[in-house]
Amino acid sequence: MKLLEERIKRDGVVKEGDILKVDSFLNHQIDPSLMEQIAEEFYRLFSGDGVTKILTIEASGIAIAIETARVFGVPMIFAKKNQTKNIAGDVYTSKVVSYTHGRTYDIILSKSFLGPEDRVLVIDDFLANGAALNGLLEIIDQAGAHLCGCGVAVEKGFQPGGDELRSRGIKLRSLAIVESMDAATGDISFRAQD
Amino acid sequence: MKLLEERIKRDGVVKEGDILKVDSFLNHQIDPSLMEQIAEEFYRLFSGDGVTKILTIEASGIAIAIETARVFGVPMIFAKKNQTKNIAGDVYTSKVVSYTHGRTYDIILSKSFLGPEDRVLVIDDFLANGAALNGLLEIIDQAGAHLCGCGVAVEKGFQPGGDELRSRGIKLRSLAIVESMDAATGDISFRAQD
Repeated sequence: MKLLEERIKRDGVVKEGDILKVDSFLNHQIDPSLMEQIAEEFYRLFSGDGVTKILTIEASGIAIAIETARVFGVPMIFAKKNQTKNIAGDVYTSKVVSYTHGRTYDIILSKSFLGPEDRVLVIDDFLANGAALNGLLEIIDQAGAHLCGCGVAVEKGFQPGGDELRSRGIKLRSLAIVESMDAATGDISFRAQD
Repeated sequence: MKLLEERIKRDGVVKEGDILKVDSFLNHQIDPSLMEQIAEEFYRLFSGDGVTKILTIEASGIAIAIETARVFGVPMIFAKKNQTKNIAGDVYTSKVVSYTHGRTYDIILSKSFLGPEDRVLVIDDFLANGAALNGLLEIIDQAGAHLCGCGVAVEKGFQPGGDELRSRGIKLRSLAIVESMDAATGDISFRAQD
């Protein structure tokens, strides 16, 4: 998605340690107009897949996911990272080892909101090692639901998550795949996609 | 907002301990169409206030906040509960004692995204004791920004948060104020509003 690549080049910041900060427009301060355009792009890519539900993980996937759900006209559900007093006891759960947060955590989703009748599009803002996405896929599996595919805004193509998911035959569409980045120069290059 | 009150009566579940579960449509599974209607209601209530930014807190405020930001045509920013590797060191921070989570936590917002030129509408899904909202107001204060007001989807009117904020002259608009609820019967009654 050229618009997103240009925005990343303009406003993304490369930091040491393979970190790409897009916090001024994607996941701390968020541009709602960009979210809408991203959602419409996901609709173009997955509208033929019979999606009944959008699934994401808190927190930075939520903005993209709710916009995508609005465009599709289906509910959005998000996996929670911490148990609250309000979570029903009956939940699907899986473990995520997070690169971003430098820790392992459990994610949970109430069983009421996902089942075998569902056809799920997984949405997230970032894909690096694929830990979060794989945690969500495990939940879809536990629910007996059908995975339509995964839509990601930004994939770090030099980390294994994306290629690993694609190698399993999963329909993964990343709107921008960062092929390389340089913290010293600030340069960011993208993988060419059809 | 009659539509929201009716949805709460239809799909809300009252639990022991003054807990109102709206997780099937508001904050775990989310109805994007309802989010859009809530956002449009907030626009009607605050469109004259010169809002330049929507501020919320992760995670369940995000869906309403991004929709509201989209309708207003302004950026949305959300305070984060846990420090990640990606947060800039230069942050506003305040403490929140959460009823929902049964714990105290710090919230942070990058200083890059809020300053004295901003006119802020604070948005959240729920208001009980007001801990989260007050944490956000403290951040606005640190930033020297102007508080236009607070928009909340559901206020528990029998808890002190809402009345305390209103008593300080803050423009608080809660789309549904629950006046009483009964876990045994499931009855929910709302405060009449103009």
